[in-house]
Amino acid sequence: MFGVTILGNNSALPVFDRHPTAQIVTLNDQLLLIDCGEGTQMQLSQYKIRRSKINHIFISHLHGDHYFGLPGLINSYGLMSREADLHIYAPSALQQILNLQFEAANTKLPFTLHFHSLPAEGIIVEEDKFSVTCFPVQHRIDCWGFLIKEKNKPRKIDKNKITQYNIPVTAFDKIKMGEDIITNEGETIKNELLTLPGKTPKSYAYCADTLYQENIASHFQNATMVYHETTYLKDLEERAALRFHSTTVQAGKIAKLANCEKLLIGHFSSKYEKLDEFLIETKEVFANTQLAIEGVTFLV
Amino acid sequence: MFGVTILGNNSALPVFDRHPTAQIVTLNDQLLLIDCGEGTQMQLSQYKIRRSKINHIFISHLHGDHYFGLPGLINSYGLMSREADLHIYAPSALQQILNLQFEAANTKLPFTLHFHSLPAEGIIVEEDKFSVTCFPVQHRIDCWGFLIKEKNKPRKIDKNKITQYNIPVTAFDKIKMGEDIITNEGETIKNELLTLPGKTPKSYAYCADTLYQENIASHFQNATMVYHETTYLKDLEERAALRFHSTTVQAGKIAKLANCEKLLIGHFSSKYEKLDEFLIETKEVFANTQLAIEGVTFLV
Repeated sequence: MFGVTILGNNSALPVFDRHPTAQIVTLNDQLLLIDCGEGTQMQLSQYKIRRSKINHIFISHLHGDHYFGLPGLINSYGLMSREADLHIYAPSALQQILNLQFEAANTKLPFTLHFHSLPAEGIIVEEDKFSVTCFPVQHRIDCWGFLIKEKNKPRKIDKNKITQYNIPVTAFDKIKMGEDIITNEGETIKNELLTLPGKTPKSYAYCADTLYQENIASHFQNATMVYHETTYLKDLEERAALRFHSTTVQAGKIAKLANCEKLLIGHFSSKYEKLDEFLIETKEVFANTQLAIEGVTFLV
Repeated sequence: MFGVTILGNNSALPVFDRHPTAQIVTLNDQLLLIDCGEGTQMQLSQYKIRRSKINHIFISHLHGDHYFGLPGLINSYGLMSREADLHIYAPSALQQILNLQFEAANTKLPFTLHFHSLPAEGIIVEEDKFSVTCFPVQHRIDCWGFLIKEKNKPRKIDKNKITQYNIPVTAFDKIKMGEDIITNEGETIKNELLTLPGKTPKSYAYCADTLYQENIASHFQNATMVYHETTYLKDLEERAALRFHSTTVQAGKIAKLANCEKLLIGHFSSKYEKLDEFLIETKEVFANTQLAIEGVTFLV
């Protein structure tokens, strides 16, 4: 499973029961948290998400609506006697803020918190099954986008070829490991002849908050799904630019430029109660668009 | 109206849809906010409380469950173009934390934020109709209690005496101002003879988080209502002491020692789903006790 669960889809001012930015990326049994607005720990409970499975937290930038829920989440991990290491990737000033908060509360965490300062070059997480890359987007303050990529999936045994070459079951493990097979007759059969390509690895890009900037698309060319902020509808393009935000149409253009399959839009301004228009406008530019509705999981 | 509206009644770990500590004290048209756990701004919206009427915020101590909602609330005030001054009374380390957060976000607030460092001696707020005093309670880190006192209310005209002394209506304003009256015959009638005492001023004391400590009762003798934390039921007195918290029975004893009329209990540990037992146990010691239920306003 590779999916994105929305915990908060609103811009800075929480209204209409919409929360500030936070989302969970599920990669099989691992959860990644991207941004952590105020109330994220309550949203995790609300949607019954197992917070103990989160080992990596990514904070795009230090506007409060993207990280004010982080100190509370970390504290709660402490109270729940978490033992596993926790990795935080965020602009460096956050480390000082957290340290001051821990110091003021005389907090001793029962687990190790690894703070990784952004900016960082290229790949910031490298795991067996996925990697995370960070890239700059353009906002009023330093802000980062993230690209989560599955690694190449193993090739699958081709049953037809197994029959054709009369390969015994005992050799299957070797084939799965990518090895060539030597038959009883001493003939070498290349692994590629016995297998089919694995599933295409998928990828998910996250861009919020950001001004409309065509060159960011180069960082996630051909990503399966991209989340791009749409703080405003298209008629407020000027206001969006002034505030270093984007519109519906602009998000659609970025998804198109990056040649993505799917687009997820969010970070809606608190001036809008209804969101229908966001979907309509974005779809005019990029048909395969979905609204980032809280509590919903979108498959990458 | 002098009342207390509960926004959060839970201890540090938010569970069972209970929130970390925050409460609004309403004094006629003024609102005071005491503590500001994560999600307070959402709770203010939830219970339709006019946040623009809050001019004073009191933070008892720097455990996160008592202030992690403050940066978000201040930010939202900025986004909502608040202009009125805002006064914060809190341990001094909070000022540094807030300043770092503002700096990291390049935040320029459109209003003046006055930070008043605790500890402070005695009266910390002196307004026309009320005052707020702070006093030390005992917790793992420096922690303060608050006592909010109405000022003496003006004496009321005694209708019987008005008739008896044949006082004309035109003199009523003078009487209300506390002046004596000189009759046409040149006789001086003392104001006290024509008036009855005004309503007894009420007062509300707030004590959380705190170890059971009998001497804190001296700071709010005869207060109308006291809020005292009851993190644990009485069987966990030892654990309460170890963690610098109190039990039901202990809260009841404090209310009794201080000769209060009413007791409000809260800051319930996340280990308890149901709260009934808190009320039963506390009432055994102090009958006029109420559970601090979220969203409910308790008249002082």
